[in-house]
Amino acid sequence: MQIVKASEFRLEREVDYGTAEQVAVVKRVVQDVRQNGDAGLLRYTEQFDKMVLTAEQLRVSEAEIQAAYQEVEPAFVTAIQEASANIRAFHEKQKRTSWMDVQSDGTLLGQIIKPLKRVGVYVPGGKAAYPSSVLMNVIPAQVAGVKEIVMVTPPATGGVAGIDPYIRVAAAEAGVKEMYRVGGAQAIAALAYGTDSIARVDKICGPGNIYVALAKREVYGTVDIDSMAGPSEIVVLADGSANAAYIAADLLSQAEHDEMASAVLVTSCPELAKRVQAEVISQLASLPRQAIAAQSIEQHGAIIVVEDLEQGVDFVNEMAPEHLEIMTEDPMEWLGRIENAGAIFIGPYSSEPVGDYFAGPNHIIPTNGTARFSSPVDVDMFLKKSSLIRYSKEALLQHGEKIMTIARHEGLEAHARAIEIRMKQEQFENKSQG
Amino acid sequence: MQIVKASEFRLEREVDYGTAEQVAVVKRVVQDVRQNGDAGLLRYTEQFDKMVLTAEQLRVSEAEIQAAYQEVEPAFVTAIQEASANIRAFHEKQKRTSWMDVQSDGTLLGQIIKPLKRVGVYVPGGKAAYPSSVLMNVIPAQVAGVKEIVMVTPPATGGVAGIDPYIRVAAAEAGVKEMYRVGGAQAIAALAYGTDSIARVDKICGPGNIYVALAKREVYGTVDIDSMAGPSEIVVLADGSANAAYIAADLLSQAEHDEMASAVLVTSCPELAKRVQAEVISQLASLPRQAIAAQSIEQHGAIIVVEDLEQGVDFVNEMAPEHLEIMTEDPMEWLGRIENAGAIFIGPYSSEPVGDYFAGPNHIIPTNGTARFSSPVDVDMFLKKSSLIRYSKEALLQHGEKIMTIARHEGLEAHARAIEIRMKQEQFENKSQG
Repeated sequence: MQIVKASEFRLEREVDYGTAEQVAVVKRVVQDVRQNGDAGLLRYTEQFDKMVLTAEQLRVSEAEIQAAYQEVEPAFVTAIQEASANIRAFHEKQKRTSWMDVQSDGTLLGQIIKPLKRVGVYVPGGKAAYPSSVLMNVIPAQVAGVKEIVMVTPPATGGVAGIDPYIRVAAAEAGVKEMYRVGGAQAIAALAYGTDSIARVDKICGPGNIYVALAKREVYGTVDIDSMAGPSEIVVLADGSANAAYIAADLLSQAEHDEMASAVLVTSCPELAKRVQAEVISQLASLPRQAIAAQSIEQHGAIIVVEDLEQGVDFVNEMAPEHLEIMTEDPMEWLGRIENAGAIFIGPYSSEPVGDYFAGPNHIIPTNGTARFSSPVDVDMFLKKSSLIRYSKEALLQHGEKIMTIARHEGLEAHARAIEIRMKQEQFENKSQG
Repeated sequence: MQIVKASEFRLEREVDYGTAEQVAVVKRVVQDVRQNGDAGLLRYTEQFDKMVLTAEQLRVSEAEIQAAYQEVEPAFVTAIQEASANIRAFHEKQKRTSWMDVQSDGTLLGQIIKPLKRVGVYVPGGKAAYPSSVLMNVIPAQVAGVKEIVMVTPPATGGVAGIDPYIRVAAAEAGVKEMYRVGGAQAIAALAYGTDSIARVDKICGPGNIYVALAKREVYGTVDIDSMAGPSEIVVLADGSANAAYIAADLLSQAEHDEMASAVLVTSCPELAKRVQAEVISQLASLPRQAIAAQSIEQHGAIIVVEDLEQGVDFVNEMAPEHLEIMTEDPMEWLGRIENAGAIFIGPYSSEPVGDYFAGPNHIIPTNGTARFSSPVDVDMFLKKSSLIRYSKEALLQHGEKIMTIARHEGLEAHARAIEIRMKQEQFENKSQG
């Protein structure tokens, strides 16, 4: 792990937009499922997942979901249950209510805030199936009040339901009642347009491979989608008071995700820099995912020595990392100066995995510098708002002329006349009555 | 205007994604400005806008902005000032604060809510320059607390500043201090990547032609962008108690926007349907934008007669219109049944132009059925959130095992070890002290 100056570090990672061939395959699959519904869905499930299913077999029954509890260790169930309760409690605090501004002339203005009606959550198959991601996608939607949360995941051979029992337990704990064994671009198309077996949704979220990501882009506009996640990042901001072994462990926990992940220490203490460098080498040696972590550390990791913590904060704000850990003598002192960071972990005991799995805040966080303008997944992402305007007769008569002035300036005479016809009528009626 | 059954009406409007040639031009312009900064910006300003400017001339001075007040009628200034105050007051109610959940074991969890730092607002030139749109884009950003709001608009010959004085007045009233005379894809590229003259922004909003729209898509990810607006729509839901002339005027005010706009009456009263049909013909005859409105009404408008208002509400929810007017005997009775509508106008005096220009709610509203999952422009769109996690030693010792259980199940051993190394150290220290 190189020790470099802030000016020498550049995080350059290309976003994968897929090959022309992948794009073409996805367009074809999406169009086919849109036109042919279940027939297309089943055909691609056979072609890509090597599973011959009937339409009736797409749905994973409630009994199949519940059976998973017999297949996993009780300690896992307990951990997932507590994590779910924490995630639910944190997201409950994000709930919002409709509001109204009641004016003395009889005018009412307001914002009606409602949950989306139906949301689809994609869960990848195989090794990329993380129970924690199921919780982080499903629970905010559920807390928002989304009534219908439907999960799709590729079918696999083996197991009672053909779907990883840990995923089934996480889904059950998060409150999923509707689950289908379909995956890939065909599943995304089914969620977007609907088929006889799967009703269309309003929003699709959850991670997936390049075909899933391209399919989400393809259907965006017909439904809403979540943002595309890039490789994960951590920046640790530390002074000489920090524990080098903790920092190295946290950097490696980021690096083990994949070769493109980025782990960066920014410190005002050259001695700490060296101690962390040595710790990384030592801890790396016994990691099961050593090859991945080593490549990530070499290619996208760095130890950056800054003059002082102010300069360190500038670096953090410029990079806008997904995860930031602050391990300094008085970490809360620095919180107010952080402009851009998706999740901020304060002090020695707030190791990133605490947030990844358990504490309650969401672990789906903007990557690749997008924390400059976007936010972790939250309840807001499953709400929609409508404006409410009840204008009174009094208000219309009082302000109508001004509305017409602006409309006429903009060359929209019919807009002005929609006001004028009412004013004339009401003034006429007022006169008749007077 | 045809009277049809609900089942016979289909609103089909293709979204314009540009031609391959337009996409190629935009990619070239964006890359050029990204690489060559001001030099590229000035070259395209000469090529596309026929204006030869120096870098120093790009900025519109405060004096040039203020001079606009001498060029417009006082009645316009008054109307814009009152509209601005109303829009500001409505959006002030959307403001949010950071919050923290303080737990007894010393753990703090929270959500830090901050404004974006710098936002770019695009304002089209020529006839598409609407002062009201300036207010609707700028004021929510300002209320959110965005410190730097920068406006770009194509240069035009004539006038003190070469920029429409009505736009300058609206910008000044909304609080814009930084304005540049640049437009097109080159302006979007400058906002996204920054040049020597124009610092990069975090989000770009505002309407524009196809080149501007394509450029926004091209830079999305590097910066945030607002959603693409489709043609405007209105649905009026009315029973026999409604005033046919008011309804016709409101339908026409939507139809005059452009040929692709859609104006639909849904009514349970066949007599009202006929009266509105006649009123539309009669009012259309004297409209300045008659040709546009007539084409919109014929191609994308309809009068739909339903069995009862319940059926009407179903139609509304299926269509998810941008604007909905409810003109029934007891309109508030129906409000709670509306699932999907961007802005809801209640009763006879809430003509859509009241909301377009003056009442306070935003007039930038989801079109083309996207009110199913998205919302009018509001303060939230200029805020970003960071999660805060300060886990205590006590919490880590108590819950560490569960965190490790989930991490190890997911095959992420380094995640587990980041917890374990702390638990071992603290348990060791506790023992040494005991």
